[in-house]
Amino acid sequence: MDIATRVYNHKWKIDPIVRSLIDTDFYKLLMCQSVFRNKPDTRVTFSLINRSDHVPLAKLIDEGELREQLDHIRSLSLSRGESTWLRGNTFYGKRQMFRSDFMEWFEGLRLPPYHLERRGDQYELTFEGTWPEVMMWEIPALAVLMELRGRAVLNEMRRFELQVLYARAMTRVWEKIERLRSVGGPLIADFGTRRRHSFLWQDWCVRAMVEGLGSSFTGTSNCLIAKNRDLEAIGTNAHELPMVYAALAENDQDLAQAPYKVLEDWHEEHDGNLRIILPDTFGSKGFFDNAPDWLAGWTGIRIDSGDPVKGGEMAINWWKSRGEDPREKRIIFSDGLDVEKIVALHDHFKGRVKISFGWGTLLTNDFRGLVPNDALAPFSLVCKAVSANGKPTVKLSDNPEKAMGPEAEIERYKRIFEVGEQERIKVEV
Amino acid sequence: MDIATRVYNHKWKIDPIVRSLIDTDFYKLLMCQSVFRNKPDTRVTFSLINRSDHVPLAKLIDEGELREQLDHIRSLSLSRGESTWLRGNTFYGKRQMFRSDFMEWFEGLRLPPYHLERRGDQYELTFEGTWPEVMMWEIPALAVLMELRGRAVLNEMRRFELQVLYARAMTRVWEKIERLRSVGGPLIADFGTRRRHSFLWQDWCVRAMVEGLGSSFTGTSNCLIAKNRDLEAIGTNAHELPMVYAALAENDQDLAQAPYKVLEDWHEEHDGNLRIILPDTFGSKGFFDNAPDWLAGWTGIRIDSGDPVKGGEMAINWWKSRGEDPREKRIIFSDGLDVEKIVALHDHFKGRVKISFGWGTLLTNDFRGLVPNDALAPFSLVCKAVSANGKPTVKLSDNPEKAMGPEAEIERYKRIFEVGEQERIKVEV
Repeated sequence: MDIATRVYNHKWKIDPIVRSLIDTDFYKLLMCQSVFRNKPDTRVTFSLINRSDHVPLAKLIDEGELREQLDHIRSLSLSRGESTWLRGNTFYGKRQMFRSDFMEWFEGLRLPPYHLERRGDQYELTFEGTWPEVMMWEIPALAVLMELRGRAVLNEMRRFELQVLYARAMTRVWEKIERLRSVGGPLIADFGTRRRHSFLWQDWCVRAMVEGLGSSFTGTSNCLIAKNRDLEAIGTNAHELPMVYAALAENDQDLAQAPYKVLEDWHEEHDGNLRIILPDTFGSKGFFDNAPDWLAGWTGIRIDSGDPVKGGEMAINWWKSRGEDPREKRIIFSDGLDVEKIVALHDHFKGRVKISFGWGTLLTNDFRGLVPNDALAPFSLVCKAVSANGKPTVKLSDNPEKAMGPEAEIERYKRIFEVGEQERIKVEV
Repeated sequence: MDIATRVYNHKWKIDPIVRSLIDTDFYKLLMCQSVFRNKPDTRVTFSLINRSDHVPLAKLIDEGELREQLDHIRSLSLSRGESTWLRGNTFYGKRQMFRSDFMEWFEGLRLPPYHLERRGDQYELTFEGTWPEVMMWEIPALAVLMELRGRAVLNEMRRFELQVLYARAMTRVWEKIERLRSVGGPLIADFGTRRRHSFLWQDWCVRAMVEGLGSSFTGTSNCLIAKNRDLEAIGTNAHELPMVYAALAENDQDLAQAPYKVLEDWHEEHDGNLRIILPDTFGSKGFFDNAPDWLAGWTGIRIDSGDPVKGGEMAINWWKSRGEDPREKRIIFSDGLDVEKIVALHDHFKGRVKISFGWGTLLTNDFRGLVPNDALAPFSLVCKAVSANGKPTVKLSDNPEKAMGPEAEIERYKRIFEVGEQERIKVEV
């Protein structure tokens, strides 16, 4: 390293975990533009939720360090090069994906204040403000907490222990890639930003996928890595859209229609591979049963909770029942994937439907078993919209372990969305 | 990397494998000084011998590249800092180990010409000249051939394949170190220069040993690494001394005495931990049977061929037969060691004699099984004195697989040194 770089590095008060506003998932930007257009003034609260309460985040992570990292994120703004990349690039085959009014707004964006308080061994971390700005906190907040927790463990390790730790983790990732290659390369994208081990590690994993999988690796959800490595940015939409739309519903009829209203707004804006249905927010079965016919014309379905084989079969049956040929459709699996699950799903569905995979935490943060007490094992941390214009949000999901919201509201949603018995599946990551 | 460093690197015509005259084993310098004092005008020929003829070196290594590397070594001379380190340092507790006349000679040394010719799939590589200068070719010549053979394999690999290769190799070295630590840390030195994977890799292995083994790691035979990493330089003497002394013997009586004459000269010059007997050049049994009593007063014995348990027992019995207490003596094992052999020998001999280990090729070059066709597996390459003042040298060793010299001379030596039946042991490295 040259002297100037070293001196420059010394000027950093901290070693920032998130150094760019586009070090985030591509679908956040797509959704943000949609929200900016359709619901710009909605006031929302996002909140950190640690579903793995055996991980005592407030004991592991120093509050001062956490504040420094979050403050640093608030100092970030879109760079000229980043703006140019968003404005000039082709995403999903489409030029000018991001409209000028949105880009102007994004160029001026600074993330709003956060509220941080220690509660026992956990942190209460919330973000309040207008939806388009608050929603941009989700990914960097998660990445900061995951990485600070990792640093707490790594700080105790010596130099060669660290080298060997990474050597072992690299070997593991590479063995996964070799396994995927051996089954003929199912299409896979990196969805691992939010719960990654670190930015550099995610970047390494992505580059390993590029070399190891070639064209079977379809890209990364991380915009910064996509930009730096000249890859496709991947992603469509997430639960926060139907959750907030639903919370804003004035009555039961509007609530029942909210998930479809989201997709109507999306339909106007996007076509082709961006028309991907995420059916499970309030239970997939009810969603499909009551879906309008025009939705069957969409390109694909993303399965993000519940038993993925059952979910895939349900999707295929729904398409058939609406007169569609599943072989022309795509299913994207994205829930808690690891190699053997990917291989099994690939084997189960191949030839019957197009399939691809959004591989997240167990790509970019599989340090299981590599340090004493498994102190680097990934865990289930999320950052969700918990209210919109003062009304609580609800998520039911196809796995009741992932449900969230006030008890009474959950019951109301279950009734309206006709959710019956659900299978509980342990949530690992 | 800064621009200046990068531009400077571009000026290298080649990427030199050996960049310093002290990138060699410490015992070569000790022996060189002894030879410089006692036999400076002896003319010797050293020759490369590939004991693993299934490795077709001339097919794997480009002759032009090999010449470039050897020519580069001929351009090297002792730097001021290296000279200062040799002159000012304490070795084995002794200041001014290297006398001024030797240092002046060494400062002026350039390695003599080499003779390189392809013979079928092997190279004939020989060095001729006076003993003190020719002997300094041994280690760099071996290191160059080992590393060029490795590079031929690595050149075909992609970037992440390389990273994962080294990740796997690092993991393996570290697991070996953890295993050694778990048995309570036998004393171990690095003897792996000559057949190392590469200089940088040896350096990494040494630093891993420092961190992982602490004071159980006693140092390295490599002078340059010892200097750079502030470690002990380790080593005493080798077979070339008795081999050349024996070749120079005028008659059978002188021949029988040659191995002891070597140690007489050594005795005058060194004491303490440098008084280590290497008994196996012409068979250990005859050596011990006919050894003068004063040799039993020496500090230790190095076991470098044959069954190491039998060799160690023979050494202990010999000391006892000469009225010495083996618990005051040291045995150094240095033949084809790997972790399980080290652990087994440690268990077998502990409490009965002081033991230490010179761990070579399987520390610094264990890439077995890590690439297709095992193309990086270490193999048995040596560079030996084959004649002295026109007369052939002979080595018998305690393993006939390691014997060398003309058939008739081998028979004569066997008779004179009273060598009976010997056990054949496959030579791996």
